[in-house]
Amino acid sequence: MRTGTGYEHTPVPLLADVAHELEQIFAAKNAQAQSYGNKFGQLWSLVAKQIRGGKAVRPWLFLETYYALDRGRHLENETSGLPAQRTPTRPVQSDVARIAAAIEALHFAFLLHDDVIDADTMRRGKPNLIGELIQQHQDVANNNGAPNSLVTHYAQTGGILAGNLLLAAAHQIFARVQLPEQSRIRLLDVLDETVFETTAGEFNDVGLSAGVIACDLPTVVDMSARKTAVYTFELPLRAAVALSGGSLKLEQSLVSATTHLGLAYQLQDDLLSTFGDPTAHGKDPYSDLREGKQTAIIHFARQTTMWPQIAANFGNPDLDTESAVKMRDTLIQCGAEAFVRSLVEEQMQLFHQKLHRADGEATIPADVRDLLSNVATNLQGRQS
Amino acid sequence: MRTGTGYEHTPVPLLADVAHELEQIFAAKNAQAQSYGNKFGQLWSLVAKQIRGGKAVRPWLFLETYYALDRGRHLENETSGLPAQRTPTRPVQSDVARIAAAIEALHFAFLLHDDVIDADTMRRGKPNLIGELIQQHQDVANNNGAPNSLVTHYAQTGGILAGNLLLAAAHQIFARVQLPEQSRIRLLDVLDETVFETTAGEFNDVGLSAGVIACDLPTVVDMSARKTAVYTFELPLRAAVALSGGSLKLEQSLVSATTHLGLAYQLQDDLLSTFGDPTAHGKDPYSDLREGKQTAIIHFARQTTMWPQIAANFGNPDLDTESAVKMRDTLIQCGAEAFVRSLVEEQMQLFHQKLHRADGEATIPADVRDLLSNVATNLQGRQS
Repeated sequence: MRTGTGYEHTPVPLLADVAHELEQIFAAKNAQAQSYGNKFGQLWSLVAKQIRGGKAVRPWLFLETYYALDRGRHLENETSGLPAQRTPTRPVQSDVARIAAAIEALHFAFLLHDDVIDADTMRRGKPNLIGELIQQHQDVANNNGAPNSLVTHYAQTGGILAGNLLLAAAHQIFARVQLPEQSRIRLLDVLDETVFETTAGEFNDVGLSAGVIACDLPTVVDMSARKTAVYTFELPLRAAVALSGGSLKLEQSLVSATTHLGLAYQLQDDLLSTFGDPTAHGKDPYSDLREGKQTAIIHFARQTTMWPQIAANFGNPDLDTESAVKMRDTLIQCGAEAFVRSLVEEQMQLFHQKLHRADGEATIPADVRDLLSNVATNLQGRQS
Repeated sequence: MRTGTGYEHTPVPLLADVAHELEQIFAAKNAQAQSYGNKFGQLWSLVAKQIRGGKAVRPWLFLETYYALDRGRHLENETSGLPAQRTPTRPVQSDVARIAAAIEALHFAFLLHDDVIDADTMRRGKPNLIGELIQQHQDVANNNGAPNSLVTHYAQTGGILAGNLLLAAAHQIFARVQLPEQSRIRLLDVLDETVFETTAGEFNDVGLSAGVIACDLPTVVDMSARKTAVYTFELPLRAAVALSGGSLKLEQSLVSATTHLGLAYQLQDDLLSTFGDPTAHGKDPYSDLREGKQTAIIHFARQTTMWPQIAANFGNPDLDTESAVKMRDTLIQCGAEAFVRSLVEEQMQLFHQKLHRADGEATIPADVRDLLSNVATNLQGRQS
């Protein structure tokens, strides 16, 4: 498709370029970080190391969408006989990779704060930032006679502060994109709305677990979609449209469709956490049950006669594996697993409908439709 | 001084305009916040209410410095016969008030996270955001039978997330200033360096208290300066210079002088927390002693023969008032209070020297010198 269009002469940022941008962010401030004390230097190096461990799903989605749209624009110019040159709003290539890096930095900022809030010390089967900080300082603590709780507090503070630094870094990158003011403001709006909505989702999640917010299905489902799906799907797609100079209507069409994809993704995540294979998903098994996380699974179970069997131990921080396995089996027997699987199916169908028939909205270009269909297919078979 | 220069025709943003800008920030997103659930709406309203409770010292310093520099530039133009019109880099008036609001938002973001990290529920003699969230939900928790620890966790999560929203808001404001790219980037650099250095200070503070970082006087003093003084003095002054189109050398001269002012301010803050009148400073009395905060006071005491009397209870979270009063008296007797007072004096002298004799750097304009001298005089007599 690209042959003969001249398009192949434009260097396309790949995930390797995103990794390079992330390295640059950390390298640029490394000397300064080290000068603020070796513990802060250690924290900075640790964040730099850990951010490389991700699958970079969001930067990938952003880059693929951006280039599908950019290619479309290029072909359009060719067909219309216009010269295939940069339009005034076309970003420089390094800015494309940089925005992708900012999207990953924002994701990691949310993960870090989520781990602090959930008091988790593991992620993807390995110690997370908090876990590594605790390991690094266990000896120091023992030598000084400081109790472990102080080291845990130190590590969790590291999680909060590292999250802040990445949140700030994402904003700094969006703020410095070399585009005309209007396009830059549009990108900043996308970031602003993403941060606001994700934060609301996180707060509602904790409110539900704390019993401060009453648990009903629409609330649980709304919370799930806001907490993860917005920054996982809407942010990369909207940023790609904004950066490529696409219409606000196209942004809206993509949001309409991927809201359902995002919800399916989050519901599936809940299923994996509770019923999946921990050796595949790498999370602390049964942590959702131990934390008393209010998911659609739990909401369904609560309406059944089997709920008392679950309620007794649900949210017990000391839940042992045997009781957790029993609880998981009860959740299957009462029909909660099947119910949530049917919700995933329903959301996937809605996604495909919206993808192909944008009600009175902009038509999603074929390349982007194909890309998102592939994403949906991959999601359905995922184990992690 | 302003009479006859035509300067008085330019509307000057005042603190009332800053308060208005802050109100606008919250009003603009209020409907959206409420739509994300009434608990998130409550959080948003609570932050809006609490941010109004501050003394707005930093926005005041920024505005006064900005107008002193802007006035100077105006007079210079008049003397040189140039027309007193906007230079191309001059910001719009609303942006000046908006940057002042962003400086206050950033300050409040740091306070919120500091309160989470220190597990404080009071600030300025009143419940802080965490304290108010706990009060609001005590009944809900009791009705649902949820233990208080869940409500505390919910409230602390509110503190983390509200801090994130304000950190993001400060970046969004800096990013949207209507100035040529070069000036905008310069402002973004100031913000970036401020966030990075303040974060390092906060991390080192917790590292010192946790016993992870070895406690010596230069480390304690460095940490103190970074944690609060940078965003209290350097940020407002540097932002004022950058926004008024002043030189980088002038920024540097102001930083050289106010580093000492900031350090004096922070050391004085430590003195007030331990030896001041709680009814005047409004903080939880003796919380520094209860938290085991490593200050210059404690560092001095540690070198004296009276340290064992202090060490026994220092950092005890259940320290009662009687023991705290005794500890405070011992800190006076061992000479720690007098030592830190002498450090404050020394830093104040260094500040005045640097203010009047910028070593090979830009001369600080007389109006700004007078302003900063007044700030220093007011600091010396402060009770809160």
